[in-house]
Amino acid sequence: MADALERLALGAGPILGDAYGQACLHAWNEGDCARELYVVAEREDAYVGIINVADAFTAPEDWAPTERAIIDRARGRVLDIGCGPGRHAVVLQAAGHAVVGVDVSPGAVEVARRRGVDARLGRADELEDVPAHFDTIVLGGQNIGLLGRREHAGQVLAGMAAVTRHDAIIVGTAIDPYRMPARYAEYNKTNPPRGRLYGQQCYRLRYGRLASEWTHYLYLSPDELGELLVGSPWLLEDVVDHGMDYVAQLRKRV
Amino acid sequence: MADALERLALGAGPILGDAYGQACLHAWNEGDCARELYVVAEREDAYVGIINVADAFTAPEDWAPTERAIIDRARGRVLDIGCGPGRHAVVLQAAGHAVVGVDVSPGAVEVARRRGVDARLGRADELEDVPAHFDTIVLGGQNIGLLGRREHAGQVLAGMAAVTRHDAIIVGTAIDPYRMPARYAEYNKTNPPRGRLYGQQCYRLRYGRLASEWTHYLYLSPDELGELLVGSPWLLEDVVDHGMDYVAQLRKRV
Repeated sequence: MADALERLALGAGPILGDAYGQACLHAWNEGDCARELYVVAEREDAYVGIINVADAFTAPEDWAPTERAIIDRARGRVLDIGCGPGRHAVVLQAAGHAVVGVDVSPGAVEVARRRGVDARLGRADELEDVPAHFDTIVLGGQNIGLLGRREHAGQVLAGMAAVTRHDAIIVGTAIDPYRMPARYAEYNKTNPPRGRLYGQQCYRLRYGRLASEWTHYLYLSPDELGELLVGSPWLLEDVVDHGMDYVAQLRKRV
Repeated sequence: MADALERLALGAGPILGDAYGQACLHAWNEGDCARELYVVAEREDAYVGIINVADAFTAPEDWAPTERAIIDRARGRVLDIGCGPGRHAVVLQAAGHAVVGVDVSPGAVEVARRRGVDARLGRADELEDVPAHFDTIVLGGQNIGLLGRREHAGQVLAGMAAVTRHDAIIVGTAIDPYRMPARYAEYNKTNPPRGRLYGQQCYRLRYGRLASEWTHYLYLSPDELGELLVGSPWLLEDVVDHGMDYVAQLRKRV
């Protein structure tokens, strides 16, 4: 009880844990009732927004066109990085692809497995334990952001090259930070003076009393993405612009 | 810039301000588009939940029966304490009541005024500047919680007596903490050892980078409400039970 009371001190802060995964489990357990189940995304400067975890259980007809495009472009064996509770993986499997999903959230991996996905605990920058030779890597739900930070992207891109075939593609969605609503500019403008790309986001997810680790996520323009790929095993093959969001297809260099 | 960068230090926390009011203003300015506009309610132990501010712009047919009951029970001149952006006040005025609204949020008061309500900045425990002689005090949206804390309720109840006629009523809605979902028990159980009523909630509202002051809000059972009224100018005249929520009507003692 003393421990519980101490944590109640004002400003003691949340408990480090799998906030996103617990939300996924609750949404999954509530079944069709869970049309809305929100986690709070808290940026390092305390800006709060919300994310509807229940969106991960919707069908492609309810998705943004950018996310549907991922399904259309995937071919062969698919590795879904940051698969969450299996939003894209379930649909890709139904379309006949062999799919492996990877996510850092144990709860999300658990839900994806319950939905029939071969989901594994793992990080975009630690793919050593993932079986190799995928034809397609999927980075849905703006997961091109998993490149994380300018100085981190090379490691992620090399790791993705190591688990794919010679003619593999990466299909993903991204957010162009220069086209975000004006209210986000105050934060984004603080990035370049700190040596960061304009759209780098440092945030954590909160659900109940839980908060994830602080995480870097990278919003970047198509041009910035192209520049980031210079010297990597990947080249930017195609971009389809949908305003603030876009679809990017990368192809492995020969 | 130095100041802005310092505030970006991890865990620096939000900026003290009118989080709720800014959300109300944004919801109002977006008009019918704003079916959903969430503020985050953060409890002192870092538990986070969300509140849809846009609910304040819905019509009574979309309200819980407990909230509609307030409209039915109000009579004569009405003081709406914690009126927010005018959810109940607008409807009460349309029904022919003379209404004054009071809220601690400047932004909420501004929106209520734009909706035609005589809304004023003020607190439940500081009603000195409010004109007197109301027939009904409305505590909608679970605002019986504005009694705040056991040792604070007497002051609030006395202030409400001072601005009402001899035969006035208070109609409000409340939450019975003993009937809340089990996940809230961990927090509520920490209250009695701290000398608090079981259902006292200490929280703040967050929107964007803003956070309100930490605030005490009181969930209490009908029995606890009745006990709290002993020695006050009010007696508990009627309770209508709707599960976790209930409607309470108080009448001024003769």
